Amino acid sequence: VIKVAVAGATGYTGQELVKLLVGHPEVHIQALLCHSHEGQTYSDLFPQFIGEVDLPLLHHSAINQVVHQCDVLFLALPHGAAASLVDEELLSAVKVIDLGSDFRLKQASLYDKWYEMAHPGPHLLNSAVYGLPEWNRVAIKKANLVANPGCYATTVLLSLMPLMLAGASLTDTVIVDAKSGVSGAGRALSLPVHYNECNESVKAYKVASHRHTPEIEQELAQMAQKEVKLLFTPHLVPMSRGILSTAYVTLNNGASVGQLKKLYEDQYKNEPFVKVLSSESPETNRVSGTNNCHISINFDERTGSAVIIGALDNLVKGAAGQAVQNMNLVCGLPETSGLVRRQMLTPA
Amino acid sequence: VIKVAVAGATGYTGQELVKLLVGHPEVHIQALLCHSHEGQTYSDLFPQFIGEVDLPLLHHSAINQVVHQCDVLFLALPHGAAASLVDEELLSAVKVIDLGSDFRLKQASLYDKWYEMAHPGPHLLNSAVYGLPEWNRVAIKKANLVANPGCYATTVLLSLMPLMLAGASLTDTVIVDAKSGVSGAGRALSLPVHYNECNESVKAYKVASHRHTPEIEQELAQMAQKEVKLLFTPHLVPMSRGILSTAYVTLNNGASVGQLKKLYEDQYKNEPFVKVLSSESPETNRVSGTNNCHISINFDERTGSAVIIGALDNLVKGAAGQAVQNMNLVCGLPETSGLVRRQMLTPA
Amino acid sequence: VIKVAVAGATGYTGQELVKLLVGHPEVHIQALLCHSHEGQTYSDLFPQFIGEVDLPLLHHSAINQVVHQCDVLFLALPHGAAASLVDEELLSAVKVIDLGSDFRLKQASLYDKWYEMAHPGPHLLNSAVYGLPEWNRVAIKKANLVANPGCYATTVLLSLMPLMLAGASLTDTVIVDAKSGVSGAGRALSLPVHYNECNESVKAYKVASHRHTPEIEQELAQMAQKEVKLLFTPHLVPMSRGILSTAYVTLNNGASVGQLKKLYEDQYKNEPFVKVLSSESPETNRVSGTNNCHISINFDERTGSAVIIGALDNLVKGAAGQAVQNMNLVCGLPETSGLVRRQMLTPA
Amino acid sequence: VIKVAVAGATGYTGQELVKLLVGHPEVHIQALLCHSHEGQTYSDLFPQFIGEVDLPLLHHSAINQVVHQCDVLFLALPHGAAASLVDEELLSAVKVIDLGSDFRLKQASLYDKWYEMAHPGPHLLNSAVYGLPEWNRVAIKKANLVANPGCYATTVLLSLMPLMLAGASLTDTVIVDAKSGVSGAGRALSLPVHYNECNESVKAYKVASHRHTPEIEQELAQMAQKEVKLLFTPHLVPMSRGILSTAYVTLNNGASVGQLKKLYEDQYKNEPFVKVLSSESPETNRVSGTNNCHISINFDERTGSAVIIGALDNLVKGAAGQAVQNMNLVCGLPETSGLVRRQMLTPA
Repeated sequence: VIKVAVAGATGYTGQELVKLLVGHPEVHIQALLCHSHEGQTYSDLFPQFIGEVDLPLLHHSAINQVVHQCDVLFLALPHGAAASLVDEELLSAVKVIDLGSDFRLKQASLYDKWYEMAHPGPHLLNSAVYGLPEWNRVAIKKANLVANPGCYATTVLLSLMPLMLAGASLTDTVIVDAKSGVSGAGRALSLPVHYNECNESVKAYKVASHRHTPEIEQELAQMAQKEVKLLFTPHLVPMSRGILSTAYVTLNNGASVGQLKKLYEDQYKNEPFVKVLSSESPETNRVSGTNNCHISINFDERTGSAVIIGALDNLVKGAAGQAVQNMNLVCGLPETSGLVRRQMLTPA
Repeated sequence: VIKVAVAGATGYTGQELVKLLVGHPEVHIQALLCHSHEGQTYSDLFPQFIGEVDLPLLHHSAINQVVHQCDVLFLALPHGAAASLVDEELLSAVKVIDLGSDFRLKQASLYDKWYEMAHPGPHLLNSAVYGLPEWNRVAIKKANLVANPGCYATTVLLSLMPLMLAGASLTDTVIVDAKSGVSGAGRALSLPVHYNECNESVKAYKVASHRHTPEIEQELAQMAQKEVKLLFTPHLVPMSRGILSTAYVTLNNGASVGQLKKLYEDQYKNEPFVKVLSSESPETNRVSGTNNCHISINFDERTGSAVIIGALDNLVKGAAGQAVQNMNLVCGLPETSGLVRRQMLTPA
Repeated sequence: VIKVAVAGATGYTGQELVKLLVGHPEVHIQALLCHSHEGQTYSDLFPQFIGEVDLPLLHHSAINQVVHQCDVLFLALPHGAAASLVDEELLSAVKVIDLGSDFRLKQASLYDKWYEMAHPGPHLLNSAVYGLPEWNRVAIKKANLVANPGCYATTVLLSLMPLMLAGASLTDTVIVDAKSGVSGAGRALSLPVHYNECNESVKAYKVASHRHTPEIEQELAQMAQKEVKLLFTPHLVPMSRGILSTAYVTLNNGASVGQLKKLYEDQYKNEPFVKVLSSESPETNRVSGTNNCHISINFDERTGSAVIIGALDNLVKGAAGQAVQNMNLVCGLPETSGLVRRQMLTPA
Repeated sequence: VIKVAVAGATGYTGQELVKLLVGHPEVHIQALLCHSHEGQTYSDLFPQFIGEVDLPLLHHSAINQVVHQCDVLFLALPHGAAASLVDEELLSAVKVIDLGSDFRLKQASLYDKWYEMAHPGPHLLNSAVYGLPEWNRVAIKKANLVANPGCYATTVLLSLMPLMLAGASLTDTVIVDAKSGVSGAGRALSLPVHYNECNESVKAYKVASHRHTPEIEQELAQMAQKEVKLLFTPHLVPMSRGILSTAYVTLNNGASVGQLKKLYEDQYKNEPFVKVLSSESPETNRVSGTNNCHISINFDERTGSAVIIGALDNLVKGAAGQAVQNMNLVCGLPETSGLVRRQMLTPA
């Protein structure tokens, strides 16, 4: 049995993670930590867990004791907090899966620029492993520190990596127009996600300036073996959860939708959590509550553009589910353990 | 007083139109026509109109008598139906504002291809006037047959025409990613807009194949004086009304966001219904129930792309409100009559 | 022209009031006041008002100067604030319409108990007039201080007053189960109305302890000429606006649905804003954005109970619209002025 | 391993049932049957099941062959259809769990009246067992034909049975005001559940005439050992799933909230799926996707009334989850098998 602790257990990502961990057949939750509810029972705060998770919450400051009783520590914290907490000593005691953004970028200077603060632990960036299992499985299995990708990044990377690997993009710019449910903004109170402000409304935000941009560019460029520029526009959509990303890539003239589909189907045919749809377009409610990502392949001959659409649940495959998937890999468990209703075949 | 009739009065567009017309200070509703509810009172069908619109509905077949008592006939009918109905004789009796798609394209062959049927009245296409007042005001004032633009088309054209006029697009392809509320799908029952199918979900549909594409290309090309190709992806969003379109255009390197904003502000400064936002991003609930279109201008230096975002209410500026605006022009009334809470200045 | 000021102009009720006032043909908005946005332009805060309400906001502390330039002062403030502000001197300068709860109860002791604070101005309670026009029109016309009813209270009173007047209730207890959209909770941030907390969920709150209870009992008892006890359960429903109340009253055995309908129809037949539905059940979207209240009459012979269902828009007939209706009465304007698309007949 | 078939597998209840069955550790799905999609793969129709349920659908007419390969047959059919299908021969081949309403009422005459048709198989009513495990566990274990309770009935009965058993109701009438998400109306297209008709709206429907009324009265009366009359008003709320029922019962004067809570806690303390909340009010999103029912106990001293609020997921505890719970009992499996993330203690 894998003993785990969760820091930041009261946010939306934390709650989803606890829900998955409590149902995982190989996991025991050792401790739940938080900032403001020390001493309260988890199920008192969140009645959906009555009779299931009646643990009292610990304060984050107890983390250094806690890790000595654990195999894996999950961090679901605001940016900056994880990197302030993790050091070699901690990593010698426990394997860390960080659901935040502190260990995703390889260059501290990029972090400093996009997050507008000096990275608290730049020397750890090299040893952190980017936790996108479908494209980095081997390295994750050996990692002590896994940087779980952002929710947008997961959607976009799963949608675009096959094209990058094939060197199919004619230009160095890709455009991604993404739509997210409101849970992506977290549980902290703020006017834009007050019910009446965002209900019955769609808007773009952080146009061409969202912090997942450099993370996506980094991974695309590494796969394409050349610079890739991302023009990324996230939108807020009135629903609780789900991300849909619509990616536009200019291709060589000779491309066909059949070739493209084959490329994706070959790439993902053994993946338990990525499904290339044959004809339907992805809908976020089809993946809600699952660790699945649905992808559809379209090609517009009139403009020579591929339109790749991906959908996933931002709280599951975009966060907590992928973190559990990474934990499975790090701990040598079957990759789908605790994430599927029935055991499915994992890639050989 | 302008006497009007509405054919197709029971759809969502029809209801919105009736709501606007009943509040218009210069209009008298002479007749409401429909397909399936002949004899029923409008307010029996739609209790929101109790005490306001208690007219009995007539059958569409009465239209030829009705027009002789009217100055303006609004058509809110499925495609194909309007073109089957309108002929020279009808146009000699009444001015027609068609909210459908039958008279928007100048080339019948394009209609035949995108609508997969032979256009029922191709000889009328030349005399029909495209009813986008901000860009075609002079012609509309003299029209007998106005083709009210599609809801997506209105959003996209108001967003992109200034760039086309300035010849600013570096490539011949523009990409538009649009998001619409569910009323855009109309009142006819179908599974994709059954509540539980589309609630809490986002999806793309008719990727690169939506019928508003040729209409938008036609108008953009005419303004740009060169071919323009549109890659257009509409999405369905779980809200009742509203459209947001996010348009991506590659510009010359020397462009700046300041120049772009000035271009738009100069273009629209006297327009009563188009607002160029200074810093906020458009939100559909800010324009809901109004005839306004909000536009924001963004420029991404990293990729040399303008990101122009437009928002409007698909049932108002995208349909019924614009139809009333066109009626005002056709009838020589102040352009904002019946469309604003207070009279605003119209362009000289 | 009536000159008005609004204190508390930035809340949801304040915004709705400004929207109605800007469209009112006989009103000039002299000043908008608020707590935290002094100096900002109203349309900067709320882009839906661009070009329409570009007034700079004043601080509440300017109110004593402002009133000397006004005929009517609207107060949309938290409870306690209005009663601290209003005194004889203010009332000698301006007529006040308070949209809050400070002047609704006749007994200060009831206020002290339900609002858990000492009423700041109990001597004014007697001169304040309860602003439910359908049942108190004569007194409102002569009032200097109008206490606009609560949103729940308006729905319930319009639903039950005819039964009380007829002395029809067999018991002294009535049960009201009400459902409200989220805007009823206001614009102040709080976890229960954070989007993801209340979306896709229904819950009861303040069971048998909501503060509108004594206000409703006071008015029902006065009409019934005997004590009336209200068991009131409000519920939060995932929609932006609207209230539906379902009221259960035990009747004498001889009652019939026909008699009941006639009672209501006779009572309300000349009312411009109350509609007794003949067969349909009220739906909140049918009254959304209007000053109308829809009521349906049901009688269950098996249990001898009347089930009276009322629906209105909590921000309009439940707040800002009714405040304008009261202003019309106070100022001698037609009661429907600024509240209907077309002028309707008002009661003689 | 229990072999099961599902007739009516394409409705919302059917889909939820398939989702639960595919995750059940002791179940093998032998066949899925439907009316209109024979030959299509289940995951083609419902992409959320790709890679999980790729079975081709059979036509309902194959049911008589199918049952010979099965241990349990689930019926999720419109009323009338199940009773036309089930006979002694079928019951000799397979155990039947009917999720519809055909076998819930003991008196065929009540069925004839409320369902406005002659019951197709009245001789089976006596042998059918009402499948509310918390109150009928012993009988269910021995049943060949289980009548799964209605979604409203489950909520109301779990909320009121302890009071009935205690003989606490002072009058013979109880009032229940219930609120349901839209999935309760099923997947068949109809205007009231077209997205734009029910979004942003609340309404009552079938006031005092809903078909779950006699079913609830039958069970309450049997528990109370006297006649009980139910005044039941269901409401439609704009959310996908969830039921909240608010029940009003007049009690003897000496009652206290403490006594009431103890009554419920004692009754349900060993129940795995019923949780009596200590202070919070139930919210439907807290039980969404689970087989749990949350109940809160309130007592209004002013009117001597208990207000019992219950919440559950209409598709799970209100339908498919309870059907699986019944299957577990019928087949001698642990009652919570396939329904909880972790095995919980079942009552001794």
